[in-house]
Amino acid sequence: MEFQFSNRVLKLKPSAIREIFKYASDPSVISLSAGNPAPEAFPSKEIAEISERILAQRPIDALQYSITEGYEPLREYLTDYMKKMHGIGRDFDNILITSGAQQVMDLAAKSLCNEGDVVICEAPSFIGSLNTFRSYNTRLRGIPMDSDGMNMEELEKALKEESNVKFIYTIPNFQNPSGITMSWAKRKQLYALAKKYHVLILEDNPYGDLRFHGEHIEAVKSLDDAGLVLYAGTFSKIISPGMRVGYAIGPKELLQKMIVCKQGQDVHTNIWSQMVCHEFMTRYNFDEHLKKLQEIYLKKSAIATGALDKYLIPKVTYNPIEGGLFLWCTLPDGVDMLDFCKQAVLRKVCVVPGNAFLTDDSAPSQSFRINFSTPTDGQLLKGIQILGTLANEMITN
Amino acid sequence: MEFQFSNRVLKLKPSAIREIFKYASDPSVISLSAGNPAPEAFPSKEIAEISERILAQRPIDALQYSITEGYEPLREYLTDYMKKMHGIGRDFDNILITSGAQQVMDLAAKSLCNEGDVVICEAPSFIGSLNTFRSYNTRLRGIPMDSDGMNMEELEKALKEESNVKFIYTIPNFQNPSGITMSWAKRKQLYALAKKYHVLILEDNPYGDLRFHGEHIEAVKSLDDAGLVLYAGTFSKIISPGMRVGYAIGPKELLQKMIVCKQGQDVHTNIWSQMVCHEFMTRYNFDEHLKKLQEIYLKKSAIATGALDKYLIPKVTYNPIEGGLFLWCTLPDGVDMLDFCKQAVLRKVCVVPGNAFLTDDSAPSQSFRINFSTPTDGQLLKGIQILGTLANEMITN
Repeated sequence: MEFQFSNRVLKLKPSAIREIFKYASDPSVISLSAGNPAPEAFPSKEIAEISERILAQRPIDALQYSITEGYEPLREYLTDYMKKMHGIGRDFDNILITSGAQQVMDLAAKSLCNEGDVVICEAPSFIGSLNTFRSYNTRLRGIPMDSDGMNMEELEKALKEESNVKFIYTIPNFQNPSGITMSWAKRKQLYALAKKYHVLILEDNPYGDLRFHGEHIEAVKSLDDAGLVLYAGTFSKIISPGMRVGYAIGPKELLQKMIVCKQGQDVHTNIWSQMVCHEFMTRYNFDEHLKKLQEIYLKKSAIATGALDKYLIPKVTYNPIEGGLFLWCTLPDGVDMLDFCKQAVLRKVCVVPGNAFLTDDSAPSQSFRINFSTPTDGQLLKGIQILGTLANEMITN
Repeated sequence: MEFQFSNRVLKLKPSAIREIFKYASDPSVISLSAGNPAPEAFPSKEIAEISERILAQRPIDALQYSITEGYEPLREYLTDYMKKMHGIGRDFDNILITSGAQQVMDLAAKSLCNEGDVVICEAPSFIGSLNTFRSYNTRLRGIPMDSDGMNMEELEKALKEESNVKFIYTIPNFQNPSGITMSWAKRKQLYALAKKYHVLILEDNPYGDLRFHGEHIEAVKSLDDAGLVLYAGTFSKIISPGMRVGYAIGPKELLQKMIVCKQGQDVHTNIWSQMVCHEFMTRYNFDEHLKKLQEIYLKKSAIATGALDKYLIPKVTYNPIEGGLFLWCTLPDGVDMLDFCKQAVLRKVCVVPGNAFLTDDSAPSQSFRINFSTPTDGQLLKGIQILGTLANEMITN
């Protein structure tokens, strides 16, 4: 049978990263292309303990249907925790537990966007979110990044020019893929612009707890006194991505629509895993755990930047980072970035070409993304050394 | 901030059942309104064993990111199992693991339906699926049910009249809410009509393994030699709904679009729970487990129908059933069904008004749905007895 697909999916392509991912599953390939937490970052022992306890004491609660909004004790605890620790959430806000933060992007786009509506995003930005927005036939408008976040002049220009902007999508901490962190000054500017132009901000913060340099900067959501910010959080990078537990904190009216959409998507998020996240946060030393993660990624990032400094600088530059999982490397003008990535793959090292993260992925890019959390220390060193050799061969002047 | 929601969600309402569900969580209310598996039907001990083993032996596999298509060993095993046991799946088909069968409905609608496209469904039908189809701004056309399934004359009339039908949605076994099972003759007719009019069938089979009377009837998908049927299966009713693991078997071309949409929705289904389902199917006696479930529901359905026969017949009638979790009861003409349900709630018994399951929920209905799997035997008896007293008071002739 020949299918007539909906307009919205006609142009959709599988995420380039997911495709590279499959290639990278060849065990002889050093994958610097994923975004997985380091294996040593998983609290496996604690999760096993918690799970055993839950299934022994309250098996039916963990295995039965639950409500769409999420596991009530987790919702309550997270609400208090995020308010107390990060000043996030006010009386006009609600919380919804989602199947990973990815679902927040989907539910927000589904609730808000008609065909042709505009989503403003950082350029480059996280391909998974961009594809979700595309899947509702939105038009993406990318705002170039400065070293301290989105360029605010360009943002205001876009807000003036576009009449049907539904939200501004930002990853303010250790952005994927650029590694850039938005300064506090720019967060305030961003919020002021959103207020001025009556536009929602969708703040995606998967890496906020993975800071290993510099001072913590509060979320844009902490400024929100007018119900203008939808905040997306997740346990993927701090407990386990395989469990698919994330959450949205945002204005009640918006969350009500998102909850109805979630009912239709998956009824509710895996309740067993929600209970595990709740017990892990409340019965273990969560702060201590986050510190341990920060140490793991400090060490791995140091190995990566050390190797980059040794093998690639000055021919290839990279953005300095204060946290997260990624390094954004840039080749000099005149070097063919896609050819570089292809040659790297032939030498069994996989990185992600920068154009994959653009609103128009056929636009030129001189950059590529390296992930330092997934490979072993040895793979990281060897992989970057191979990239260095390749760069030296391709960049002769 | 005032939100401008997308057209598709403007008219969406939370599922009436989910709302009743909340009311029914009042512990003094006897809920005959849910659709939960019986607590004694969960293989809790086995799940605890499996989970302990997985987290001891392969914690990173269970907690790390995985691929969108699903856990490969589960996909392979299910493909073989469904082919061998039910003749489901051919070379042109693929399998996708989803976050519950509900996600199959969402991904199918998202991949196929533009605004205004028509989805043909049974009338009445499962409210969760209807709401999902509505959330893509489709138009629902309901086909009345005979005692052996959809009325085929009405179906052909609809297929002739409607020019943009994207699929026919059916729950052939122990349908929710009517309890009706489609005969083998009608399954063949349905498939022939789909072929004649080049329309996809979306076959939703959550209850197929819960047959406690009569002979097994093969799925419509078993007839599919032309790639016309998308089959939705689930572990919700046979292992655990809280884990949210379902699957789709259907034409590769369609599944490819659904996979891309799933990437954007939740990346992949909880991998830990996928592994649990796989081990449960392969390392335990799965057939024995299904037989145990059938015995549980045979017993509970007998309690329910016994009480209905004693307290409600002949004033209230119900459809005979051969499996599943539901009984569809009908009040005589002239009795106000909504008032009956409301009075029942005031007497602390909760059932679902039949109009909730119609394509137009403001259309008249004389029916209500009783679930017999969730309440205890005592609650079931007492609840139906209260309904009987109420019926005797309201139906005087």
